[in-house]
Amino acid sequence: MNTFGILFRLSTWGESHGASIGAVVDGCPAGLELSAEDIQRELDLRKPGRSPVSSPRREEDRVEILSGVFEGRTLGTPIGLMIRNLDQRSEDYAPLADLYRPGHADFTYQMKYGRRDPRGGGRSSGRETAARVAAGAIARKLLAARGIRVLAFARRIGEVALEDREVESLFAPEPAPAELEALRRSIYGSPVRCPIEGRAEAMREAVERIAAEKDSLGGIVEVRAFGVPAGLGEPVFGKIGALIGQAVLSVGAVKGVEFGAGFGLAAMRGSSANDPFTRNAGGEVVPASNRAGGMAGGISTGLPIVCRVAVKPTASIGAEQETVDARGRPVRLSVQGRHDPCIVPRIVPVIEHMINIVLVDLLLAHVARDSFFRL
Amino acid sequence: MNTFGILFRLSTWGESHGASIGAVVDGCPAGLELSAEDIQRELDLRKPGRSPVSSPRREEDRVEILSGVFEGRTLGTPIGLMIRNLDQRSEDYAPLADLYRPGHADFTYQMKYGRRDPRGGGRSSGRETAARVAAGAIARKLLAARGIRVLAFARRIGEVALEDREVESLFAPEPAPAELEALRRSIYGSPVRCPIEGRAEAMREAVERIAAEKDSLGGIVEVRAFGVPAGLGEPVFGKIGALIGQAVLSVGAVKGVEFGAGFGLAAMRGSSANDPFTRNAGGEVVPASNRAGGMAGGISTGLPIVCRVAVKPTASIGAEQETVDARGRPVRLSVQGRHDPCIVPRIVPVIEHMINIVLVDLLLAHVARDSFFRL
Amino acid sequence: MNTFGILFRLSTWGESHGASIGAVVDGCPAGLELSAEDIQRELDLRKPGRSPVSSPRREEDRVEILSGVFEGRTLGTPIGLMIRNLDQRSEDYAPLADLYRPGHADFTYQMKYGRRDPRGGGRSSGRETAARVAAGAIARKLLAARGIRVLAFARRIGEVALEDREVESLFAPEPAPAELEALRRSIYGSPVRCPIEGRAEAMREAVERIAAEKDSLGGIVEVRAFGVPAGLGEPVFGKIGALIGQAVLSVGAVKGVEFGAGFGLAAMRGSSANDPFTRNAGGEVVPASNRAGGMAGGISTGLPIVCRVAVKPTASIGAEQETVDARGRPVRLSVQGRHDPCIVPRIVPVIEHMINIVLVDLLLAHVARDSFFRL
Amino acid sequence: MNTFGILFRLSTWGESHGASIGAVVDGCPAGLELSAEDIQRELDLRKPGRSPVSSPRREEDRVEILSGVFEGRTLGTPIGLMIRNLDQRSEDYAPLADLYRPGHADFTYQMKYGRRDPRGGGRSSGRETAARVAAGAIARKLLAARGIRVLAFARRIGEVALEDREVESLFAPEPAPAELEALRRSIYGSPVRCPIEGRAEAMREAVERIAAEKDSLGGIVEVRAFGVPAGLGEPVFGKIGALIGQAVLSVGAVKGVEFGAGFGLAAMRGSSANDPFTRNAGGEVVPASNRAGGMAGGISTGLPIVCRVAVKPTASIGAEQETVDARGRPVRLSVQGRHDPCIVPRIVPVIEHMINIVLVDLLLAHVARDSFFRL
Repeated sequence: MNTFGILFRLSTWGESHGASIGAVVDGCPAGLELSAEDIQRELDLRKPGRSPVSSPRREEDRVEILSGVFEGRTLGTPIGLMIRNLDQRSEDYAPLADLYRPGHADFTYQMKYGRRDPRGGGRSSGRETAARVAAGAIARKLLAARGIRVLAFARRIGEVALEDREVESLFAPEPAPAELEALRRSIYGSPVRCPIEGRAEAMREAVERIAAEKDSLGGIVEVRAFGVPAGLGEPVFGKIGALIGQAVLSVGAVKGVEFGAGFGLAAMRGSSANDPFTRNAGGEVVPASNRAGGMAGGISTGLPIVCRVAVKPTASIGAEQETVDARGRPVRLSVQGRHDPCIVPRIVPVIEHMINIVLVDLLLAHVARDSFFRL
Repeated sequence: MNTFGILFRLSTWGESHGASIGAVVDGCPAGLELSAEDIQRELDLRKPGRSPVSSPRREEDRVEILSGVFEGRTLGTPIGLMIRNLDQRSEDYAPLADLYRPGHADFTYQMKYGRRDPRGGGRSSGRETAARVAAGAIARKLLAARGIRVLAFARRIGEVALEDREVESLFAPEPAPAELEALRRSIYGSPVRCPIEGRAEAMREAVERIAAEKDSLGGIVEVRAFGVPAGLGEPVFGKIGALIGQAVLSVGAVKGVEFGAGFGLAAMRGSSANDPFTRNAGGEVVPASNRAGGMAGGISTGLPIVCRVAVKPTASIGAEQETVDARGRPVRLSVQGRHDPCIVPRIVPVIEHMINIVLVDLLLAHVARDSFFRL
Repeated sequence: MNTFGILFRLSTWGESHGASIGAVVDGCPAGLELSAEDIQRELDLRKPGRSPVSSPRREEDRVEILSGVFEGRTLGTPIGLMIRNLDQRSEDYAPLADLYRPGHADFTYQMKYGRRDPRGGGRSSGRETAARVAAGAIARKLLAARGIRVLAFARRIGEVALEDREVESLFAPEPAPAELEALRRSIYGSPVRCPIEGRAEAMREAVERIAAEKDSLGGIVEVRAFGVPAGLGEPVFGKIGALIGQAVLSVGAVKGVEFGAGFGLAAMRGSSANDPFTRNAGGEVVPASNRAGGMAGGISTGLPIVCRVAVKPTASIGAEQETVDARGRPVRLSVQGRHDPCIVPRIVPVIEHMINIVLVDLLLAHVARDSFFRL
Repeated sequence: MNTFGILFRLSTWGESHGASIGAVVDGCPAGLELSAEDIQRELDLRKPGRSPVSSPRREEDRVEILSGVFEGRTLGTPIGLMIRNLDQRSEDYAPLADLYRPGHADFTYQMKYGRRDPRGGGRSSGRETAARVAAGAIARKLLAARGIRVLAFARRIGEVALEDREVESLFAPEPAPAELEALRRSIYGSPVRCPIEGRAEAMREAVERIAAEKDSLGGIVEVRAFGVPAGLGEPVFGKIGALIGQAVLSVGAVKGVEFGAGFGLAAMRGSSANDPFTRNAGGEVVPASNRAGGMAGGISTGLPIVCRVAVKPTASIGAEQETVDARGRPVRLSVQGRHDPCIVPRIVPVIEHMINIVLVDLLLAHVARDSFFRL
């Protein structure tokens, strides 16, 4: 099931060390300005930099648009996207073919399919998410045309976490598009994808420290979507939270998701958890608070969508681990090669773009049906 | 989007105070023994009891099987299920028609659809989940035929939470079906759906206390699925965690979900988060620990699936709340009627059955494809 | 797979002699005026009359709306529809349980599912189409709100067929809604569902004659959809002809479908098969002829959709047939009971409504995407 | 909607003169031997030859497998397939950009999307079917592993048609795989894809004659599927005929489809249209005749699937046509370039492979569900 979405449908394909990876985006409205550069820009945000917080590999992810665009605008037909895998070396995977790395999907792929591509994790590699980011870049442009903007950032890495008031300080009550774009630049200007300078520095140090110990860290990504009109979401199984949940939990290394006050609501009382309503400056009825994270009954309220995602520590670590091989013989494994000691910074744009994709899909459904008798 | 699943497809319909609610289950294999009693038994687990922890309303949810069963066995055709709404009074909803209750979906349904059924929340009522439980009862029987059993219980209500070691003490390493059935009975024997007596008592007291204060509590539901063979899950968008995530986040009042060590992984190191492999008594390679919650790369490992779900406090409270009405005029609202002061006990079977449904769907896909060259 | 459609989704359930049959319509826009009478009126068109051309059974198909409608208008939530089976006698199906009737699905259902409901064909009964007509009544109202009208009629019964010029004479070049409604009344005023009086009379006689011979006749249903705007259809697998094809071929007894000049095109030359373009009175470019049946490349042209459907003779006949029973023992079978000697008149509204359903679904997709940058 | 299928899902993308066209096949079971040559062999059957009956263009359709295959076997992950468009000249499409060619989709794409790729028909080009054939080659291999074989051939071109007895003479009652392979070779050995020599010659002459007249011919493709077990098909909307109908009607130039005796049934009586049952040599109950084309109630009977497809004459003709341009100004159009004067021979493998794809999808669903309690 490598397809996601109803009206704006993303299908991805590709193994980490196969010929290429890619995506087909079906259902993008015709007439959107789109160039390979638009997509490349987003892909580059996912690219490992040269800083010690991410793997020093030099991936040159160059996206090609194979179809669906003509003279710089979308045709309404499927948009084929491809990224060649430059690193297709196959000589050195033999030692992996007989090994189930702890924390990886080698074992489960073998159990499910009876065989697997052992090179770099094959289909289960994080590399697959590049195809999602490429597709998300298109979703992002469509959302921008309707005034919707999604921002993700590192909320926590290891023990370094942003406090609520720090996060709130980032956002004006109704931030202007330009402010949000500036904030996004500052997020991606940070090697750990954290827009608060002191915290970003502490995160960076934590990652360097763990790298020196040949170990890895997890963290939390937070996402906020601004400008989402009230009314998006398709109850009951297409609730906005349910679809975002599926979308982000489909990303490798993600082990949890929560909305608004999330797990914190488990310890709250109804009287303080409920969001009452008020009248805004324009005289409209709006929620007076946003503990629900921008949704109620699975439909957006008009306030920002707020979502947090738990990311596990990178499974590949240099430190020695005791495990067994595919035949059950004890082995001591120390994963060589270059791996991100913390995957959070690379997951930030992936989470952002998965939510872009969900929102476009719901926006199209909303346009189709909810406006039928209003058009 | 009121349909869920690919091969075992559940569609639900119905408003809280309309004529009836129901479900269509499409794709159930032919030949399953099935009676209305099998379904009724599960529905009754969801029914509010007479204890103070749940609403004293007397719902008589009687399920009718409308189709798909002949001479006590399924036909392979769609199974229509219906539960009449006995409580269809419509005289007294007028005051609600102009009100957006805090924490409810009145406002968002109005924004989305331009109109709504104000009686008891209409489609957004928790009552809709009765249809899911009815369908889940079928899924449960199918899973049992393959040795799979799902258990859910209250892990936390308000400040009362089970500790990890308490939870672990509930389960033998490889619990026998009879043990699991006994444990299930003890869960549903508790009015708060918690199988550890002392904790259950404390939870009950907490709920009574909050009820007296006309307020409400949230909590956490934990689910464990036993006997799930390695290999279920359809990467990349049908990962087992992604589908369970969608399924449970589609339940009203659920605001978060996590798997295995979940959000706790954000603070762990790779060296302690990874599950290494070992050889079991039968000589098979299996994960030696289960911090990943029974899945890797979106595919089941063969260890129990472990999932926790955050439930917000009941939105309807007797305590007075300040809000505005649909025209923006300030009102003080005190929700009358009988509402569960904590929804966790009623959500327990809903979560269990949503996961039953996910697992059957993945099991059918697994049978279809992964065994193609092995049959 | 008892669900059809993407945005306007129809799911049906029910066996011929089970408790009831029904449908769930998911995705109907909110705000449509809808009453049980609106649906009943269409159902009644499918009901066998008292004339000799159809079965004298007295089916009282009373539809109930179970959900999705409040105060006379749709809510945007799933619309549950149910028709009780009054005729649930089960005493007399024993002889059928061991028999595979020629031309029926008894054998294939048994092969597929390993069991079946032998009462009246169970799920494979034509009765299932009542649920489709009920759903189609909703689609019809939505289409009418956009000026789209679908008409079906008996084009041929046995040897009595309408000639092309007779059919063309029925339709003004751009018929007004009132004219089409009048024509529709005249179709359903005829017991054979044919609007040309002489031909209708000849068809009626042919049916009476075959009934007297305890045999049955097939025929052809023709459908025309007026007011369909250019642009409906979702290439490549959602082409308007492909979806209509699936829709009508999913109706029992339908064995073929063709569009425009259809199979006749096999014998034509390109120079006479092509539809050139011209300029209409309003100065717009439009096709000058309609041999393609209102579509090109799977997208509607703005001209009427023209489709013909081949219907096989009723399988149940009074005449004796030689066959074998489920154990392979020779039997001579003479189907008792009352069966339509020609199913064409009853299929006419089914075909019409399946096309209503396809068109609404495509219309919603069209609104969603193709207008994204035009709104 | 560029995706087809439930369990074996085909998504295609690409414009005729864009960078490339391709397909993603999702859901292919792991472990199938598959090489680019396996696919190329099928693609070559679709390639225009050098004979006068097809376009003398020199398309070099070289398929690349981008993913999903490792060490010569499928991984169970999506199989990405790509065919580069060598002929991407864009200099000479300017004259077409303002023209709606009769019989083509230029007009409807423009109406739907507000823009289009005018080069060679863009997405609506027959070239898109190459991606389907590539995917069908995989389906074909899966079917062969289960003893299922699909054959298509030209049943009619212009006035030259095979008679029923000629067609029947081609097939032994239960043809051996080797016989069917031999017959397939003889079909593709004929430039018109007709296995009966004299008729093939007459068809070839008819095509040459029409080419000389700068006009074009239509025809009929017939397909037969052997070895299909009883029980495939998913009532009611996934009936085997309904899905085959959708599949073949999604192919450009196809304007009708019929099964078994098809439209001929409209003129038959039930007593001669019904297929009674008998006992075969092995003592099993089987249909004694096959007027229904291998299906009843939408489920396969075990007899060969028989289907015929109406193909319209090629729209592009050298003869002058009067039409108007996009602004409504009269033009006389004579399509230059090289076009097949009859598209039937090139459509033969496309139809065959679409049916391969349908059958694999239904086979997987059958394995999943219908064998649940038999495994």
